[in-house]
Amino acid sequence: MLYLVGLGLSDETDITVKGLEIAKNASRVYLEAYTSILLVDQSVLEKYYGRSIVVADREMVESNSDEILRDAAIVDVAFLVVGDPFGATTHTDLVLRARELDIQVRTVPNASIMSGIGAAGLQLYNFGQTVSMVFFTDSWRPASFYDRIKENRSIGLHTLVLLDIKVKEQSMENLVRGRKIFEPPRYMSVGTCAQQMLEIEEEKGEGVYGPDSLAIGAARVGGKTEKFVAGTLKELCDADDALGPPLHSMVLLGRRTHELEHEYVREFAVNKESWDKIWKAEYEGKQ
Amino acid sequence: MLYLVGLGLSDETDITVKGLEIAKNASRVYLEAYTSILLVDQSVLEKYYGRSIVVADREMVESNSDEILRDAAIVDVAFLVVGDPFGATTHTDLVLRARELDIQVRTVPNASIMSGIGAAGLQLYNFGQTVSMVFFTDSWRPASFYDRIKENRSIGLHTLVLLDIKVKEQSMENLVRGRKIFEPPRYMSVGTCAQQMLEIEEEKGEGVYGPDSLAIGAARVGGKTEKFVAGTLKELCDADDALGPPLHSMVLLGRRTHELEHEYVREFAVNKESWDKIWKAEYEGKQ
Repeated sequence: MLYLVGLGLSDETDITVKGLEIAKNASRVYLEAYTSILLVDQSVLEKYYGRSIVVADREMVESNSDEILRDAAIVDVAFLVVGDPFGATTHTDLVLRARELDIQVRTVPNASIMSGIGAAGLQLYNFGQTVSMVFFTDSWRPASFYDRIKENRSIGLHTLVLLDIKVKEQSMENLVRGRKIFEPPRYMSVGTCAQQMLEIEEEKGEGVYGPDSLAIGAARVGGKTEKFVAGTLKELCDADDALGPPLHSMVLLGRRTHELEHEYVREFAVNKESWDKIWKAEYEGKQ
Repeated sequence: MLYLVGLGLSDETDITVKGLEIAKNASRVYLEAYTSILLVDQSVLEKYYGRSIVVADREMVESNSDEILRDAAIVDVAFLVVGDPFGATTHTDLVLRARELDIQVRTVPNASIMSGIGAAGLQLYNFGQTVSMVFFTDSWRPASFYDRIKENRSIGLHTLVLLDIKVKEQSMENLVRGRKIFEPPRYMSVGTCAQQMLEIEEEKGEGVYGPDSLAIGAARVGGKTEKFVAGTLKELCDADDALGPPLHSMVLLGRRTHELEHEYVREFAVNKESWDKIWKAEYEGKQ
C-alpha cells in the first residue's frame, strides 16, 4: 500500500495519530521536501518516528517514482507531505503511476495552508482561486497571478497568495559545471510579495489593486508563534520584521466581507485607524 | 487558554498528536456537533481521550458561550471541531468573546473538507468560492448558490458544494408545543444535491450548468471507505447507492482543467465513454 500522509503545517506533533502509526510501521518512509517545509528539521521527525526517513527531492519524485513505489504492492510505503497531500501541490502523477502498477493508495489528510489560513479571520467561503508568487529575477517576472487576482476581485473574493520557497537550488555557475553544490534555502517574505505585486500593478496599470488595498500577512500558520499582520499592501512591504521568520503567506482581500471579519482582523492591523477608514470606504457593505 | 482543536474528517485517530494531548489534559472539553460530524460516535471519542466530553449544540455555542469560556483565563478549555476549526464554518464569535474576556486562544488546525476534497483529483488552485446546499422544503428553496456557481464558472473555476446536515431538529408540532423531541438526523446525499441543482437551473434558465455538466460526488472523504463517483449531474442524481452512507459532498467542474486531472478523475466515472466525450467537447483545453 502507498500511503500519502499529510504532516500539517508546523511541527512533528501536527501529524495525525493515524498518520503517526503509518510513519512508524511502514517499510520505507519518504519525506517530500521541495514544495513546503515544516518548522522543524528532518532529524526531529526521525527521532519522533523512531526511524530513518528518506528525503525525496523534486527530481526523485518526478523522475524516479518507481523507486518510491518499489514493492509497494506487497509492503507499506509512506510518502509524507507537509500540509495536506493534495493541498498546495498535488501528487497526482505518483498516484497515477501507482494505479498503473496495481498498488493500492490511501490518503491521510491533514491541515493545509488553504484551510489553515482561515485562522486569519476571513470566511473561507469567500476565497477565490489560490495563486502562487515566485521570486522575480531581472529577466523573469511571471505575472499570471495578476489576471487570477483580477478574476477573483471582479466577483468580490479574497485571494490566498502562496509564496515561493527555494530549496536545493544551484547557482548558474554550479549548474553549468555540474557541481552538486546548493544555495542556502530562500523563503519569500510577505514584504517581497507585496512589493512584487505593486510592481506588476505599476506595469499593467489595470487597477486590479493598489498600494491602499487591504491584505493580511501570515507567518507560521498553525504554529505556536503564528502571527498575522493586517494592513495596506504598502504597509505590508515593511511588515517583515513584525511577522518574523518563515513561512509566510498572504491574503489580498476581496470586497465581500462581513462586519465580524472586520472586528476580527482589525486586531492585527498595523494602523487601526487607516484600516478602519479604508475598510469603511472600500469594503464595508459591498457585494 | 481556549484551544480550538480540529478533529479532521473521519474517525478518532484523525486528531493530531498535539490535539490529542490537549483533549486529554484540558479541564473541560466541548465537542461542536452541529455543523459537521465524524463517522464515529461521541462515546468512541470519550473512550479514546479517556474522559467525558460535553456536546455543544448550536444554542450553547451561540447563546451560552460564556459557560464554555468559564475560567478559561486560568484553566485550559478545549473546543473540538470536526474538520478544521476555521474550515467550513467559523467560530469567530467565540474567539471574539474570548478576546473581550482576555482569554488567550490557540488553534490546532486539521484537515478540512475544503482541502481534503483535493483527493478527488482536481487541483485545489482551480477552485472558486465554496457554496452550501440546504434541504429544500415546499416553501423554502434558497438558491443563492446559483449565482455563486455562475460567478465561479464564468472564470472557469470548480465549485465545492457542501451538503446540509440536520441534527437536533424539531418537527413543527414539537417546536410549537415546546417538546424537546428531536427528529432523527438527516444528511443530504449527492443525489438530492444534484436534483436540487437541476431544479433551480430549470427555474432560472440562465444555463449556468445543465444535466450534462460534469461533477464529482464524494463520500466519507479521508475515511477508509472514501468513495468518489464522477459523472454528469443527471447521472449523479442516481449515484447514492454507489456512494454509500454519509457524509457526502460534491464538486461541480469548471472548464479550467488539466489532462492529468482528466486521467485521474475518469477512473471514478459512472460511464467512462460519456465522461470522455463531454470532457473533450466542453472542458479540454478551455481556459
